[in-house]
Amino acid sequence: MKPWQDRRILDLFGIELPIIQAPMAGATTPEMVIAASEAGGLGSLPAAQYTAAQFREAVAQVRAGTSRPVNLNFFAHAMPPEDPARQAAWKGRLAPYYCEAGLDPEMPTAPGGRAPFDADFCAVVEEARPEVASFHFGLPEKSLLDRVRAVGCKVIASATTVAEAVWLEEHGVDAVIAQGFEAGGHRGNFLTHDMATQVGTMALVPQVADAVRVPVIAAGGIADHRGVLAAFALGAAAAQVGTAYLLTPEARILAVHRRALKAATADSTALTNLFTGRPARGILNRVMREVGPLSDLAPAFPTAGGALAPLRAKAEEAGSSDFTNLWSGQAAALAREMPAGELTRRLAGG
Amino acid sequence: MKPWQDRRILDLFGIELPIIQAPMAGATTPEMVIAASEAGGLGSLPAAQYTAAQFREAVAQVRAGTSRPVNLNFFAHAMPPEDPARQAAWKGRLAPYYCEAGLDPEMPTAPGGRAPFDADFCAVVEEARPEVASFHFGLPEKSLLDRVRAVGCKVIASATTVAEAVWLEEHGVDAVIAQGFEAGGHRGNFLTHDMATQVGTMALVPQVADAVRVPVIAAGGIADHRGVLAAFALGAAAAQVGTAYLLTPEARILAVHRRALKAATADSTALTNLFTGRPARGILNRVMREVGPLSDLAPAFPTAGGALAPLRAKAEEAGSSDFTNLWSGQAAALAREMPAGELTRRLAGG
Repeated sequence: MKPWQDRRILDLFGIELPIIQAPMAGATTPEMVIAASEAGGLGSLPAAQYTAAQFREAVAQVRAGTSRPVNLNFFAHAMPPEDPARQAAWKGRLAPYYCEAGLDPEMPTAPGGRAPFDADFCAVVEEARPEVASFHFGLPEKSLLDRVRAVGCKVIASATTVAEAVWLEEHGVDAVIAQGFEAGGHRGNFLTHDMATQVGTMALVPQVADAVRVPVIAAGGIADHRGVLAAFALGAAAAQVGTAYLLTPEARILAVHRRALKAATADSTALTNLFTGRPARGILNRVMREVGPLSDLAPAFPTAGGALAPLRAKAEEAGSSDFTNLWSGQAAALAREMPAGELTRRLAGG
Repeated sequence: MKPWQDRRILDLFGIELPIIQAPMAGATTPEMVIAASEAGGLGSLPAAQYTAAQFREAVAQVRAGTSRPVNLNFFAHAMPPEDPARQAAWKGRLAPYYCEAGLDPEMPTAPGGRAPFDADFCAVVEEARPEVASFHFGLPEKSLLDRVRAVGCKVIASATTVAEAVWLEEHGVDAVIAQGFEAGGHRGNFLTHDMATQVGTMALVPQVADAVRVPVIAAGGIADHRGVLAAFALGAAAAQVGTAYLLTPEARILAVHRRALKAATADSTALTNLFTGRPARGILNRVMREVGPLSDLAPAFPTAGGALAPLRAKAEEAGSSDFTNLWSGQAAALAREMPAGELTRRLAGG
């Protein structure tokens, strides 16, 4: 089976290889996006850790570096109301770590941030007219989504259940990303919040493929060509790969993160909500073991990370990843260090 | 790709189709085993819910029904010491349900049971000389395992992590079952007991295949031919399928269980330890939602189920599955009702 016998995603996006470099806010650089797209896949630039102005600049850099199709990616959450009581309880839980680190538990901390898709980001989309726009945590409000469509973007979004996939199709997406339990980083769940029932890629992809008419992109646990072939066998028309791109020279990640990825085995990760307030998969470290990995105390997304920031900074100074979000899927051990363009080609069997 | 281009498991077991009907204690009948083996796959008869005498009789029935290779399956656990305090606490947690059901919370209950592999079961193996013996929860003690090998059985066992797969290979298994997180029934974990780090099939199979020299059997989330093809793409040489066989006429399951399976979607299940004391995947029901699904109160395997038995019996009388273990993997929705022989052939692409 040649993966491109099913050409639905290739034709939809106008790409040559059915490989989508997953958007990884913080780690994905314009250079990574350019390399993935130039290799024939679809590079994806995530907005969540940029301001709109920074994002506009990064998008311009991508467009200057490649004339091939690219994907701009956004988180579709709403900002939660301020909740000082919950923040205080959270900081109380972390206070012993502050004391241990010689930090003042009463010190002010920034609200941890991931920016949602809004009118400012939408303006960047309208200017840049990316071939694809992808969303996580559901879809933005209709008026904004209509503006994205109006400039010709294909719209895709993540589903973690069959119900979410069907909902996305009903709301007009051009393809569904079936995000299996194995995937690194944030779960894209938006209709369910039960982490006990999240579904593995092997089971999710064929059930989503049976339930929707739009093409399916498999994500989760895929880090080499075998996974891409398996995704196609299950009924997907492309694979989205994240973790393997973290080991490319184009990734911007901390040395402690790279070291943890290179030492990871299949069961080194867990879902945790400590770093942002929403469940995301990362390599187990001290704070995950001692406080979580899933804790009811973590404030609502995206505000949980602020209180961890001083602990993280202090630990990282000392070369420790005790308080760092070490995002990773369950297949980090399959990844090899190589340039993002070569990785894209090798994922596709080249 | 024809799945049988990799013939390692076919040749090892002497079978025609790379499909192993998973042993499902309680639900698997001799008729199911016969049908799967006669179709060219490997039928598997589980011992855990039989006495040795009952098992001997069931094995004789299988041998009378097919001359093809079969697998006898065993749980390799040790029985825990009695723990009246823990049982009392567990019954205390369940007492409100007893009262609601009009049952006396002080009524004596049987110890819930799953029989471990022992000298009596070993004698059955020595008499029957099955082509394959499979183990769950690790391997039995060396003296017993040596007796199994001495009569020519190929030995296989489940791994939920790469470390478990390597341990099994070091202890002489002929093949490893890589049991992904999606799988129904009991997790086979034995070196780790952390359910937060269990690995999806998509990520587990290639990492196990890279780590061991013996062939790998993929399990978890596979319920149709697509999953079998995917398993081979990932590096497996066979697939073990359970849940889909629950919908065959050869399965012995309750009407409430069959109904739940037919209504299941991808995210209908969770891992729970309430029914036996060890984590197993089943369809969410009332007791799982209200008490678990994973509870520190559940007594050690296999003794947790006894206290649930009266509640279960009373509920089932009324057609309710509120207290029944509804074992299922995450791909029940892919299964179609058909005879076990036809299912075996269709899983292999026939």
